[in-house]
Amino acid sequence: MSELVPPHGSKTLKSLALEDDALTTELEKAKSLPKITCSSREFGDVIMLGIGGFTPLDGFMTKLDWQSVCGNMTTSNGTFWPIPITLSTDDEEIKEEDEVALVNSKTNEIIATMVINEKYTIDKEYECERVYQTTEMEHPGVVMVMEQGKYNLGGPIKVLSDGGYPEKYGDLYMTPTETRDYFKDKGWSTIAAFQTRNPMHMSHEYLVNTALETCDGVMIHSTLGELKPGDIPAEVRSEAISTLIDNYFVENTVLQSGYPLDMRYAGPREALLHALFRQNYGCSHLIVGRDHAGIGDYYGPFDAHNIFDEIGDALLTQPLKLDWSFWCYKCADITSMDICPHSNEDRLLLSGSKLRYLLSENLEVPENFSRVEVLTILRKYYASIKEDEKVNVELKGHSAR
Amino acid sequence: MSELVPPHGSKTLKSLALEDDALTTELEKAKSLPKITCSSREFGDVIMLGIGGFTPLDGFMTKLDWQSVCGNMTTSNGTFWPIPITLSTDDEEIKEEDEVALVNSKTNEIIATMVINEKYTIDKEYECERVYQTTEMEHPGVVMVMEQGKYNLGGPIKVLSDGGYPEKYGDLYMTPTETRDYFKDKGWSTIAAFQTRNPMHMSHEYLVNTALETCDGVMIHSTLGELKPGDIPAEVRSEAISTLIDNYFVENTVLQSGYPLDMRYAGPREALLHALFRQNYGCSHLIVGRDHAGIGDYYGPFDAHNIFDEIGDALLTQPLKLDWSFWCYKCADITSMDICPHSNEDRLLLSGSKLRYLLSENLEVPENFSRVEVLTILRKYYASIKEDEKVNVELKGHSAR
Repeated sequence: MSELVPPHGSKTLKSLALEDDALTTELEKAKSLPKITCSSREFGDVIMLGIGGFTPLDGFMTKLDWQSVCGNMTTSNGTFWPIPITLSTDDEEIKEEDEVALVNSKTNEIIATMVINEKYTIDKEYECERVYQTTEMEHPGVVMVMEQGKYNLGGPIKVLSDGGYPEKYGDLYMTPTETRDYFKDKGWSTIAAFQTRNPMHMSHEYLVNTALETCDGVMIHSTLGELKPGDIPAEVRSEAISTLIDNYFVENTVLQSGYPLDMRYAGPREALLHALFRQNYGCSHLIVGRDHAGIGDYYGPFDAHNIFDEIGDALLTQPLKLDWSFWCYKCADITSMDICPHSNEDRLLLSGSKLRYLLSENLEVPENFSRVEVLTILRKYYASIKEDEKVNVELKGHSAR
Repeated sequence: MSELVPPHGSKTLKSLALEDDALTTELEKAKSLPKITCSSREFGDVIMLGIGGFTPLDGFMTKLDWQSVCGNMTTSNGTFWPIPITLSTDDEEIKEEDEVALVNSKTNEIIATMVINEKYTIDKEYECERVYQTTEMEHPGVVMVMEQGKYNLGGPIKVLSDGGYPEKYGDLYMTPTETRDYFKDKGWSTIAAFQTRNPMHMSHEYLVNTALETCDGVMIHSTLGELKPGDIPAEVRSEAISTLIDNYFVENTVLQSGYPLDMRYAGPREALLHALFRQNYGCSHLIVGRDHAGIGDYYGPFDAHNIFDEIGDALLTQPLKLDWSFWCYKCADITSMDICPHSNEDRLLLSGSKLRYLLSENLEVPENFSRVEVLTILRKYYASIKEDEKVNVELKGHSAR
C-alpha cells in the first residue's frame, strides 16, 4: 500500500485553528482588539488557513511574499505558491505590530486574530496583470483585487472559527485531516479531485470515470464559497451529485465533499492553486478540464493544462489533463474531443443557460445529456423557485393594490 | 513543448548495429569465426540490442549481471533491469576471450559478433523462481530457460542484421530512433504504448481511448516475434488494427508499429521490461491491463500493477494501470471494472477461443464486441485458412486413395 501524497511544503498539515482552552482564551482576548473586516474571499482564505488547506502558510502574505508570488509563483522563502493570499483594509489607524481581530463582514463574527508584521501598499494593476493576465474590470477576479482596501496587512493568524460550515453542511464539509483519514480508511492512495460548483451531468460523470480508470478514488470537491445569482444552491447540487454517486458509480470509489473558498477565476494560476490545496487534502491528482477556472475568453482552453509543464515538480499533485466531453450521436456514446473522430454537428452541445431555461420551463432536456435522477432533483428545485417567484409576484400584486 | 522521455539509463540510444563499411568488414570477419546458434528468444534480443531497444546494455549479461538481475532487478553496475538478457550454448570448445559469430537458428544468417568475456553456468531453477515465480514446465517461460544450453556466454556484441523485419513488415516495423522521430514530428511528448499480439476489439479500443484522454498519442505496439499456433498472423492483425485506426480514432493520435521480441510470459517482471523498452522507444506510459504478460494462473490479476509501486523511480515510463473492459448491457456502453457498477451477468464476456470458433464457423459474433470492419477482415482470414484446410484435406484424401 502506497502512502498518501504529503501536504504541500510540510511534513504535516499546518492547521491554524485553535481548539479548546486556547480557543476560549483567544476569543476572549479578541473581543477587545481592533477589528478588521474580511471580504467574502478573505473569509474563505481564513477558514482554509484554519483547517490546513493552505499548508504551509502561517497567515497573510507580506509585501515580499506578495511580490515574489506575483512575479515568480514562490513565497519569499521559496515555497511554490501561485496566487497571493492577502488581507486588505482602508483603516488608517492600524499600524505594524498591532494585534487585531478579523471579522466576517456578513455575520460580524470574530474569525481570527492576527499580529500585523507589515502594513503595505501594492500595485494592484501589477497583481492583476501577473495573476489574471488582464486589468479589465469585466473580470471578476480583477474586481476583487481592485476593490480591496488601500493597504495590505501581512502577518501570522490564529483562526477562531470554522466559518459555520460543519453546522451548515454536515458531513459534506470535510477538512484536509478528515479527507486524509477517509482515504486511508478506504485504502486509497491515488485520488483525483474533481472541482465543481455545479450539479453534474453525463459529461462530468465521464470525466470522473476517466479518472477512476487510473486512480483508486475520486473526490468530487465543490466550492461552498459564495455563489452567483442563478447558481444551484449547494444543498440541491449535493443532492443531485449524491444520486449520481448512488446510482452510477462503483461503490466506494467516489467521495463528495466541499471546501470553503471563493472562486477567483484566475484560469491557469488558479488551476495551480486548486492542485496545491488538493495536495493538502490528500489528493494525488486534480482533474483539469478545458478552460479550468477560466471565465470569458481571458485564457486559452489549454492554458491551465500547459502551466503545469512550466512548474516542474513544484507540486506533487499532478494534473489529469482532460478535454471537453459530450454525447456524440455518431459514436452513440458519451465521449470526448480526444477520442471522438466526428464533428460538432454530430454532438449534443447544450449551454448552461439553455439547460436552465429548459428546466425552469419544465421542458424536455435532450436524451443522453443528464441522468433522469439528476434532472428530477433539478426540476423539483426549479419548480420550487417558480412557486416562490409566483408567491412574490402575487404578494407584489397584492401590495400594489 | 515538453521533451520525450530519455532512453533508459543513458542520454542517447545505444544501438549496437553496425552500418556501412564497419558492417561490411565485420560481416566478412564473422564468416571465419566459430558460430553460436541463437534460439528464437535470443534472436529477438540480438535484434533489439541492435536497434537500441535494450539501451543501455552493450551485449549479453555476465554472471554477476545475471545474478543481480535475478536477485535485485539491477545489473551489477546498478542499472535497473527486470529480466536476464542472456545467451546460452552447449558448445564445450568455446572459451573466454574467444570471438564468435551469432547465427539465427532458422535461417543460418549471421546476425552478430561477440567477444566472450565470460562462460558460466547458472542455477536455472533459481532464475525461474526469481523471474517467473515458478519452476513448473507448464510455464512457457520456464521451458525457455530450462531448455537453454549448459553454459551462458556474457560479453559485448556488434549487431550485423536487422533480422529481416524492415523487409518483411515495411513501415509497420519501426526502430526506437524512428518512433522518437515520429513522435517529435507529431509534437507529442506523452505517449502511451499499448502492448498487443492480437487484433483489437472494442474492449482494446476502450483501453487506448482511456490512454488518449490523458496522453498526446498512443503507440499500438505488437510483438513481431514468434507466434503460437492459432494466433492471427501479423499481416492480418495489422490490417485489422489499421482499419480501427482509420475509422474509430481521432486522426493523428494513434500509431501502429511492431517490435522484434518473443513473449516471455513473466507477468509482473515482464511488465517492467515492457515499460523499460518502451522508454527507449520514447513512450512516457505503458498501458498495463489485468494480468499483463501473464499466462494461466501464475500471477495475480494486479501483480503487474503493483510491482511498479515497488521500483520507485527506477523507470521514467509510467504504468497506466487499467482494469478489465467489456460491453455492459445495463450501462449500454463499453466500460470497465473500475466504473461499471453492475455484475458479470450484465456483461458481454466472450473468450478468445469462443470468438475464434464463431469466426471460423462464420457464425454471428454478439453485437458490441467488435467493430464490423475488424470482423470482416478476420472472417476473410478464417475463410482462407478453411479453404487451405479443405485443400489439405482433399489432398490428403487424394493421396490416401
